[in-house]
Amino acid sequence: MSYYFTKILKTDFETAILKVTEELKKEGFGILTEIDVKNTLKQKINVDFRRYKILGACNPVFAHKALTAEPHIGTMLPCNVIVQEIGENMIEISAIDPIVSMMGVKNDQLGGIAGEVQQKLKNVIANLR
Amino acid sequence: MSYYFTKILKTDFETAILKVTEELKKEGFGILTEIDVKNTLKQKINVDFRRYKILGACNPVFAHKALTAEPHIGTMLPCNVIVQEIGENMIEISAIDPIVSMMGVKNDQLGGIAGEVQQKLKNVIANLR
Repeated sequence: MSYYFTKILKTDFETAILKVTEELKKEGFGILTEIDVKNTLKQKINVDFRRYKILGACNPVFAHKALTAEPHIGTMLPCNVIVQEIGENMIEISAIDPIVSMMGVKNDQLGGIAGEVQQKLKNVIANLR
Repeated sequence: MSYYFTKILKTDFETAILKVTEELKKEGFGILTEIDVKNTLKQKINVDFRRYKILGACNPVFAHKALTAEPHIGTMLPCNVIVQEIGENMIEISAIDPIVSMMGVKNDQLGGIAGEVQQKLKNVIANLR
């Protein structure tokens, strides 16, 4: 079992970010945070790394449901989508599977919510072109 | 088994944020992202929620090790620390247990790294006063 849904697009890095942002929006997710891993590692510890961004995606309706069902679930929010350059004009986009990341949380109500969010993130990756 | 380490401080919200930021720094973590859950839920879906922040904490040396061992682990980074107001001058501070959140990732090398980060986050919570 994998812990993420993924697809490789033949495009450039910035276009991939725009495309996944658009697909996330269609499923009700906004991007609340963005970490530029390449720049962060260069700045903080002077290490060279490939282009890699972590986007923190949040569907506020589902986030509110999850936080109401499970007060500490913020330790696992938002849902991350990562974009990484794996070759020339080869960009891999991967979304976390919240059912797997939240498997250590024993809460049936949360499980139902995570299942709905899982389907939305699956759709995001499936609809990338 | 819980999926987080936690402590309640008798202080105000802003002081709690400063204290945990300081303890994170002592263990080599910077805060890369900050989500104000209360404000976000009010703005996006007009819901009232208690004071609640999600801090994305990153120790760049360990993040680099983890990303090298497991290229998609960015879907589970950074490590979140949440700060929530649970009563008047009662602030709960909780850090994710990365061993639990990453239990669905089958990678022994990553497991060792997650164990070291777990100890650092345990220290952060234990040292809060």
